[in-house]
Amino acid sequence: MSQRNMSELPWREARAAGAEGVTLLPIGSQEQHAAHLPLATDTLLVEAVVDRALEILAEEEQVPGAPGTDVLRLPVLPYGHSPHHLFAAALSLSAPTLSAVLGDLLGSLVTSGCRRIMIVNGHGGNDEIMRLAVKRFALRPEAEGVTLAACSYWTVTADGGEAPGGAGEAGARTAERPEVTPGHAGWFETSLMLAAHPGLVQTPVAAREPVVPPPLFDNPPYPGLTTERHGEWARVGGATDDASGADRDAGRRLLDARALGLARAVRAFDAATRPGLRSEPAPEPAGAAAPAPAPAHQGEE
Amino acid sequence: MSQRNMSELPWREARAAGAEGVTLLPIGSQEQHAAHLPLATDTLLVEAVVDRALEILAEEEQVPGAPGTDVLRLPVLPYGHSPHHLFAAALSLSAPTLSAVLGDLLGSLVTSGCRRIMIVNGHGGNDEIMRLAVKRFALRPEAEGVTLAACSYWTVTADGGEAPGGAGEAGARTAERPEVTPGHAGWFETSLMLAAHPGLVQTPVAAREPVVPPPLFDNPPYPGLTTERHGEWARVGGATDDASGADRDAGRRLLDARALGLARAVRAFDAATRPGLRSEPAPEPAGAAAPAPAPAHQGEE
Amino acid sequence: MSQRNMSELPWREARAAGAEGVTLLPIGSQEQHAAHLPLATDTLLVEAVVDRALEILAEEEQVPGAPGTDVLRLPVLPYGHSPHHLFAAALSLSAPTLSAVLGDLLGSLVTSGCRRIMIVNGHGGNDEIMRLAVKRFALRPEAEGVTLAACSYWTVTADGGEAPGGAGEAGARTAERPEVTPGHAGWFETSLMLAAHPGLVQTPVAAREPVVPPPLFDNPPYPGLTTERHGEWARVGGATDDASGADRDAGRRLLDARALGLARAVRAFDAATRPGLRSEPAPEPAGAAAPAPAPAHQGEE
Amino acid sequence: MSQRNMSELPWREARAAGAEGVTLLPIGSQEQHAAHLPLATDTLLVEAVVDRALEILAEEEQVPGAPGTDVLRLPVLPYGHSPHHLFAAALSLSAPTLSAVLGDLLGSLVTSGCRRIMIVNGHGGNDEIMRLAVKRFALRPEAEGVTLAACSYWTVTADGGEAPGGAGEAGARTAERPEVTPGHAGWFETSLMLAAHPGLVQTPVAAREPVVPPPLFDNPPYPGLTTERHGEWARVGGATDDASGADRDAGRRLLDARALGLARAVRAFDAATRPGLRSEPAPEPAGAAAPAPAPAHQGEE
Amino acid sequence: MSQRNMSELPWREARAAGAEGVTLLPIGSQEQHAAHLPLATDTLLVEAVVDRALEILAEEEQVPGAPGTDVLRLPVLPYGHSPHHLFAAALSLSAPTLSAVLGDLLGSLVTSGCRRIMIVNGHGGNDEIMRLAVKRFALRPEAEGVTLAACSYWTVTADGGEAPGGAGEAGARTAERPEVTPGHAGWFETSLMLAAHPGLVQTPVAAREPVVPPPLFDNPPYPGLTTERHGEWARVGGATDDASGADRDAGRRLLDARALGLARAVRAFDAATRPGLRSEPAPEPAGAAAPAPAPAHQGEE
Amino acid sequence: MSQRNMSELPWREARAAGAEGVTLLPIGSQEQHAAHLPLATDTLLVEAVVDRALEILAEEEQVPGAPGTDVLRLPVLPYGHSPHHLFAAALSLSAPTLSAVLGDLLGSLVTSGCRRIMIVNGHGGNDEIMRLAVKRFALRPEAEGVTLAACSYWTVTADGGEAPGGAGEAGARTAERPEVTPGHAGWFETSLMLAAHPGLVQTPVAAREPVVPPPLFDNPPYPGLTTERHGEWARVGGATDDASGADRDAGRRLLDARALGLARAVRAFDAATRPGLRSEPAPEPAGAAAPAPAPAHQGEE
Repeated sequence: MSQRNMSELPWREARAAGAEGVTLLPIGSQEQHAAHLPLATDTLLVEAVVDRALEILAEEEQVPGAPGTDVLRLPVLPYGHSPHHLFAAALSLSAPTLSAVLGDLLGSLVTSGCRRIMIVNGHGGNDEIMRLAVKRFALRPEAEGVTLAACSYWTVTADGGEAPGGAGEAGARTAERPEVTPGHAGWFETSLMLAAHPGLVQTPVAAREPVVPPPLFDNPPYPGLTTERHGEWARVGGATDDASGADRDAGRRLLDARALGLARAVRAFDAATRPGLRSEPAPEPAGAAAPAPAPAHQGEE
Repeated sequence: MSQRNMSELPWREARAAGAEGVTLLPIGSQEQHAAHLPLATDTLLVEAVVDRALEILAEEEQVPGAPGTDVLRLPVLPYGHSPHHLFAAALSLSAPTLSAVLGDLLGSLVTSGCRRIMIVNGHGGNDEIMRLAVKRFALRPEAEGVTLAACSYWTVTADGGEAPGGAGEAGARTAERPEVTPGHAGWFETSLMLAAHPGLVQTPVAAREPVVPPPLFDNPPYPGLTTERHGEWARVGGATDDASGADRDAGRRLLDARALGLARAVRAFDAATRPGLRSEPAPEPAGAAAPAPAPAHQGEE
Repeated sequence: MSQRNMSELPWREARAAGAEGVTLLPIGSQEQHAAHLPLATDTLLVEAVVDRALEILAEEEQVPGAPGTDVLRLPVLPYGHSPHHLFAAALSLSAPTLSAVLGDLLGSLVTSGCRRIMIVNGHGGNDEIMRLAVKRFALRPEAEGVTLAACSYWTVTADGGEAPGGAGEAGARTAERPEVTPGHAGWFETSLMLAAHPGLVQTPVAAREPVVPPPLFDNPPYPGLTTERHGEWARVGGATDDASGADRDAGRRLLDARALGLARAVRAFDAATRPGLRSEPAPEPAGAAAPAPAPAHQGEE
Repeated sequence: MSQRNMSELPWREARAAGAEGVTLLPIGSQEQHAAHLPLATDTLLVEAVVDRALEILAEEEQVPGAPGTDVLRLPVLPYGHSPHHLFAAALSLSAPTLSAVLGDLLGSLVTSGCRRIMIVNGHGGNDEIMRLAVKRFALRPEAEGVTLAACSYWTVTADGGEAPGGAGEAGARTAERPEVTPGHAGWFETSLMLAAHPGLVQTPVAAREPVVPPPLFDNPPYPGLTTERHGEWARVGGATDDASGADRDAGRRLLDARALGLARAVRAFDAATRPGLRSEPAPEPAGAAAPAPAPAHQGEE
Repeated sequence: MSQRNMSELPWREARAAGAEGVTLLPIGSQEQHAAHLPLATDTLLVEAVVDRALEILAEEEQVPGAPGTDVLRLPVLPYGHSPHHLFAAALSLSAPTLSAVLGDLLGSLVTSGCRRIMIVNGHGGNDEIMRLAVKRFALRPEAEGVTLAACSYWTVTADGGEAPGGAGEAGARTAERPEVTPGHAGWFETSLMLAAHPGLVQTPVAAREPVVPPPLFDNPPYPGLTTERHGEWARVGGATDDASGADRDAGRRLLDARALGLARAVRAFDAATRPGLRSEPAPEPAGAAAPAPAPAHQGEE
Repeated sequence: MSQRNMSELPWREARAAGAEGVTLLPIGSQEQHAAHLPLATDTLLVEAVVDRALEILAEEEQVPGAPGTDVLRLPVLPYGHSPHHLFAAALSLSAPTLSAVLGDLLGSLVTSGCRRIMIVNGHGGNDEIMRLAVKRFALRPEAEGVTLAACSYWTVTADGGEAPGGAGEAGARTAERPEVTPGHAGWFETSLMLAAHPGLVQTPVAAREPVVPPPLFDNPPYPGLTTERHGEWARVGGATDDASGADRDAGRRLLDARALGLARAVRAFDAATRPGLRSEPAPEPAGAAAPAPAPAHQGEE
């Protein structure tokens, strides 16, 4: 087991680590998060989740005989796709720009010897672009022998990705409020920031009345419908829900649940893609309750 | 209530219909669907769902006093993003090309007077690109006063978008097999095609042994993880699951459930975006059991 | 002889048909056509010409001993390059977008095994983009062994492509009015629509006074000069000439002349590009009067 | 009347000249022209035609009372779109690059005050790109009040653009051989080069046997069909026809016919677009036989 | 005087700080730096220089009556343009991608209220792209009222930008070796890393024989000539000069000289662009020897 | 020794010349140069410097035993990147367009057999784009065996590239005024134009008062800082310094110094890149005082 920062390695060591381990690329954003959270909230939270997930992996591997997962970590990309927040303040890469950045980085990683790469995302606006980048790159000829993965941190949970708040680990479960998760600059993110970076939260967080009607982008008129109305973010003031009840303890449990989920996801990805294992079923993650079988087919129609 | 094909109207009538009603743009694909289904499967199915949804809307509006929804329908875009099927045969637009096509069409629609536009998709590979197109377009200055929506047909169900197979309408529910929905060229699509275009299905459909390990793109090692391995579609032979048990009656019920879901989604979108209603809560869809409140937050992180 | 719709075939059959036959891709537009014709006019007309041309090919091949031409037909692309019609209403792909679409489709077809491909166009605004797409694609390395062709339907006539109205077949010739062919939403297109889709023509068609000066784009100050003035389409009201004299019988003959021309063009293209014939002179089209030798050199300067 | 080189003027004089006169932008190419003609053939010929056309305009304006046409001439763009000649040698801009160059130059000209702009082309490979550039630019908002024109020099003839070799001026007519005009590096271009730059022609020009079959791009199997086969330029050796009979006297007459045609086209464009004349019919060109009315409709379908 | 990290501020505070102060955007790279330095060398060094420069600014402002400069610092962009290092290992953005990233970030900053922006670069491969980005952005309409600056850290020195090693401050001067500055992974960078991050330098650094001939990119055959030979970086082993004599004390002085230079550059930029000072001469930087007047005209030819 | 114009050669001769010699591509601009110089100033000057440099090379090679340098000269690209001059008048290619043009031309040259290519630039606004184009092209696979160089004419001087006005040849040195070199439309360019094209200079050149403050782009607040303020070119009237003292004799010496510098640069580039010499030190340029060793490292950081 090893955990290395790619940044800190000379190139031969970086190539060797990338050839063996799972390469992790965190991506975030800089964008308005209402009056009480800093611009970097998404970047800080994805880094906090990755930090804690790597701690968990390291702890688990202390157990004699436990399998190990080698991880090569990249510097976070601190800028994401946030045009919907420019009404207030944001540093936003356009969709084609972010797509090009991710494509260039994936190409560079593969050219530099990496074979198993996972992007971990902290910002909803990056989600489609990231998943599309991974799908497109996997089809390139230079991706021969390469496997890629992508997730947004709030979707990987300790109980195996059931809808947040589902029947997972007791500790984590009690903190979940799926109806406002993840939201934006609301109860969920504020709770996490109180846990991870309390000094950067302006407290007390003011309560706010519900916006009527609630924002269409967060409350589509029918389930399954992505709905976008021009000017909606400005109309609702830049946040999706009331953050005044945010809670540091809940934040710790929410963060721990994602970190545990990410740790298990990294372990499972490692197991499923380890060279030589290609035609065998992926083993169970060690040292953890088995995740429920994945119900949400991402299948290609 | 009116239902018009934009194609068939002179331009003043087209502008008038777009200014008042909900504009529907179906998009599909041409791509390999194993040995038994035609290349156009996704295009044919999205058109079948839209056809049936418009029939349902028309029927419901026969009830005296029932509210009406004006619909302006566009010709289906028969080509989508299918690079993962080129190992066999497909007519694929690259991601930047499809993104440009959707952006150009949305821009043209708004320039031509449309104000409320919904894209209905029949192909998984288009999904991220479509949702991103809608989000990006809504931010453009020319989208002032415009609302956009997007969905893939298999995600809108009669029971309001719970995971397919959830506790919805009895008739539809009994047919669902969420573990292979939607898949690709498997039980779900084959059943729908047997219902909608039986003459285009090569029968009997051969049974096939499960591929071991199953394809990573359809069976991620951990829930929430998009996972893509180079060459995976060719390895598994172009389909996600055994289609030999596909059933025409189940297909009718599956199709009806999506058509009913789409009809309700159109009605709800119409209600939520009708001019003058902007600051009021969206009314319940008439003549239908209320969908469950949307639990799946698509929120912006 | 076979005529297949690519859409309706499973992929192995599609590949086999593309490897043997001539692949036909029709492209159209959605754009204003004055007050009396529908947006889809160009799309409907190119499909009508292709339909009739394929009927003619099938009829001719009934003759014992007649050679046959295998045709693989693609779904029409219903959207084209129509920015000049957005002053009223149109669904327009920009020139780079349409260029990318055609490049992607040609690339997909060749990857899927097609070797001889012909684009048939229904909209003047697509003409340069289509011809350029064909020229560019033929130079790509993946076009080794591939031949491509492109035409706009109104330029292929029964008498072998002399200026419309030239000395061709008696029946067709009598209907031609070259001074208003093809024009836009005028006598020519209206006559064709009265023949092909009379139910979509708003009749009676109002007469109109000639616009003075006539539109520069249709009446260049000197022959050979493409001339474009900003705002000209709006100034002249969206049509090039008076359509009030349009005539269904003339429309049938005009359409038949193009269909016969297209049938002969397909046959000639097939003959000139059939594998094994590369270094021999192209045979005369069978079952038809020989077209005049091509006088209009499209030569590269 | 004035004829100015934009290059040689300080900017205020350049703006003033562009605001009043017709701006001429010649474009050419650098590409193989068989063993006997230089790479710059197309560039040299378009410049020779423009030089002579401006002389004709100047001569005609010596007549007392003759109207004058102010011309602002730009430096020739010596590089064009020639990918089909890279099998031997060429300096080629890709189609998107040349399209961007022309768009940038048109935009710059309009920003710098020009209102009536004509591109004169010397290379077949530029033709579609040039015409498309003109059409696209005319639709931009900054083209308000601007008119654009484009032609390839071999299509503007003294007799008003009938098919080359038509019933025009006696002197020019006798030299024409439309079946090999323009061709590439054949009789037509070689004759013109013998007239314009005899020192750059390698003589005697070797005769060559006809290539069997002749190149598809220059001899489509059916009239009206653009036909392109991969590798065709290399197969036929880089020229379209036998140049050994090229003739300096014929070249002079061919060149004079195009120069006279271009002079009349410039005069007619000037007359049709002179400010204040917008709603009046374009006057006849002065001091010249009237061209035949333009029969070739470039109409938008 | 204030120094703020934009990342850590809620959006209103970020806007206020950007409206008043100088916004600093550091950019770096991840790329091979021979066997002894880490991939992030350029990123770490530009951050070290900025850190120290801000300390200097803060110290100088302790003096009573000294003027203050408000600085708003952005997170470093850790990825740059390094295709020339992919022969070993690098994470490289292509030139168009990096250009788009910088354009998007500058646009976002201006939209978010910043008016005076300086990019500080740590990687030679970014230099032209950065300067071009600044020049291009300043011409956009949204840059009304905005001033932009850009520098690479090794070019701003305490003695005012004379060639490194010129007659500047005594302390800094003694350490300079201009003939190997900046180089790549050689004496200069290694010395700086020994000063800033000694734990990330693999020591002892092996000596190496001079490469013969030395790399053309670093030793052009004539002064003023940018010279690039394919494969040159691999030929010379990824470094420009022998780093075995690198020295931590020298590194401190080299770093201090750049930090002092950057501090003065920030102060001078602030003074020259402070609102209301537009038509007055820029004041001398306070608390520092005046820099020599800038001799190196970057003038536009 | 040979000097050939690529334009004037048939393709086999062009390929042969490119395979042996140094290919020179001059690039210029069309842009405002104040009230007294023509738009083409930069293009005319770079051509004058290249003309004179080639004369010098030819003269030097008259000496018995002197080595020779074969040169293949391309037509000047008369259009460059001049968006900053559009406030008055310019014909400007955008940065992506010029970048594409240079990439396309370099690619064409290499495909056409050239192996050693030097771009000589006459316009400051092209400088970064040109150097970047050369760096990027050298990394492409097709650049195997190719070496590229780039310079702006005012930076190559007889005394080997010391800051203009440095301790070079006596004759040239006395004319230099480095504080206004090169500037734009000022003393330097006006003097050169009086020497090279006196008929195109509007004389007498009016004196002008210094602009206060002087333009930031030409007078950065700190050395090493590229500084750009929106609207600055219009504020200072389009020129950097007073041209009224421009002098024809000085112009001749300034021009001669650059021509001699360019001649030596071409000779040195030839010597350093001649096939077979790759691993030997570059020889001294023959028949000329040795340039000082290059002190200005362009090294990659």
